[in-house]
Amino acid sequence: MREHPPPPAATLDLAAYMASRGRLVEDALAAVLPPETSPPTPLHAAMRYSVFAGGKRLRPLLVLAACEATGGRADDALPTACAVELIHTYSLIHDDLPSMDDSLWRRGRPTCHVAFGEALAVLTGDALHALAFRLLARNAEQVGPACALRVIEEIAEAIGTQGMVGGQVLDLLGEGRPELARWADWPHDRQRGVYEIHRWKTAALIRACVRAGGLLAAASARQLEDLTAYGEHLGLAFQVVDDILDEAGEASRLGKDTRTDAARAKLTFPAAFGVERSRAIAREETARAVAALAGWGPAARLLTDLAQVLLEREA
Amino acid sequence: MREHPPPPAATLDLAAYMASRGRLVEDALAAVLPPETSPPTPLHAAMRYSVFAGGKRLRPLLVLAACEATGGRADDALPTACAVELIHTYSLIHDDLPSMDDSLWRRGRPTCHVAFGEALAVLTGDALHALAFRLLARNAEQVGPACALRVIEEIAEAIGTQGMVGGQVLDLLGEGRPELARWADWPHDRQRGVYEIHRWKTAALIRACVRAGGLLAAASARQLEDLTAYGEHLGLAFQVVDDILDEAGEASRLGKDTRTDAARAKLTFPAAFGVERSRAIAREETARAVAALAGWGPAARLLTDLAQVLLEREA
Repeated sequence: MREHPPPPAATLDLAAYMASRGRLVEDALAAVLPPETSPPTPLHAAMRYSVFAGGKRLRPLLVLAACEATGGRADDALPTACAVELIHTYSLIHDDLPSMDDSLWRRGRPTCHVAFGEALAVLTGDALHALAFRLLARNAEQVGPACALRVIEEIAEAIGTQGMVGGQVLDLLGEGRPELARWADWPHDRQRGVYEIHRWKTAALIRACVRAGGLLAAASARQLEDLTAYGEHLGLAFQVVDDILDEAGEASRLGKDTRTDAARAKLTFPAAFGVERSRAIAREETARAVAALAGWGPAARLLTDLAQVLLEREA
Repeated sequence: MREHPPPPAATLDLAAYMASRGRLVEDALAAVLPPETSPPTPLHAAMRYSVFAGGKRLRPLLVLAACEATGGRADDALPTACAVELIHTYSLIHDDLPSMDDSLWRRGRPTCHVAFGEALAVLTGDALHALAFRLLARNAEQVGPACALRVIEEIAEAIGTQGMVGGQVLDLLGEGRPELARWADWPHDRQRGVYEIHRWKTAALIRACVRAGGLLAAASARQLEDLTAYGEHLGLAFQVVDDILDEAGEASRLGKDTRTDAARAKLTFPAAFGVERSRAIAREETARAVAALAGWGPAARLLTDLAQVLLEREA
């Protein structure tokens, strides 16, 4: 991979940072995804269709920003940044399936199963999932095997049964699906339940992205502890804002079906707390994320600015 | 993990070996799968339901046998053995989905999506997939990070777009699905096509299991080369026999729907070559697998006996 100079983190403008690092991520994703000209062509086409659909690349940017904020190099974090985006994309493809959220639109385009059929969509998610771990393993060439392995463990745990996938199961339980009625012991309490869902479904991977960035920069135990708290609160704030935008947003701006959560009786922050209280929770969680890096001085600026931008976003 | 004495591979009877190592694998799987009593309980229940459904544990046994045949310890290979079984189980759950093969029975019991609903079945596969990589990463404690990483790369590649998942896509293309008709360039030739499907769909992971066993035992480059050829031919032979059993078998003995391949116009070995020629191919591929280990002397016996048993199996 090419060499990129480390950014003067304390002085760099967040928008410029996001644009420059966003380009790195796009180029790296284009390089790691198999070409559409090699077989199986429909699978490779569906993978690229889903990955290059105009996502925000939040998770890769968090990996890079956490790595650079703790003194690491963006290049060393790029394979991990790509891997978490592939994992995020796989989770969206599977979440959109007819048996799950049955979403027809995502980022202004037909979802993967609408464009490629349901069978291929299942397999496209599976292929992205496997490719992510291949990238994480290959990253050992840059950062050494011990570091690459810690990142693999971190991410595999974050997307497992008490992480992203487990959160998606709680989400289904929260909808009150009849086929899951025999596990009706959950949720005990709607307000506690919505925190439990999103701590696993969204915050676990976001926290892992931030921690992975720190691990790749050989951050200290104290820095990792701060990054853990930052990632946890940022992940919750991000999901609360997402829920509010779904509740209040217009489909044209978000590029996906809106008010779908309400239509499916999903257990969201607005459903459990109302929109106004949800807005306050988003602000509180953002403030906690920022506070977690209080001792970092100017090195925190990229990460704290990013938290603010995510709080105020409109799509 | 407990200590197990290395087996006197050259003198041990295969049936005794399979029984003893099969017990190790069952115990290890029971220990690594999350308990049904911890949340999310339906997910953990579905994972255990699918993993403990009476499978042959062929892939774990191949990991262990290849490891022990090249001088390694079964204990060092157990996490990898569990991981490949979790991956195999995830692939069966997803292959059985209504949008894929739409299978209602597997190993004499309702398939995962019949028992737990389709949404939970998708997520159960995803959770097993992620847990497999977690186990492979944790294995570094026993075999060191460099060795654990080589195994992760080996397996991630084998289950990717030019491996297990890619083979499943070719399988769908071979069925002539209308939603995939725009990629109608494949298969060019039915007899070549069925080899391509199964080299990826089945043989890639079986070859990776055997190679992983060798890697865990620090096998020589020459031994790995022999194991690669053994695994490739064994994987093909295994799939040909599977196709023949589906074509000719009785549902009661196999515990799953039979003649489903023919009903779905799947491109199988019997469909492309007829049953008699398929039987000859199975014998030829088994002979090639055995021949690959010709220079090994008595150390090959476990693996060559296993190839023979798989050829002659009736379920």
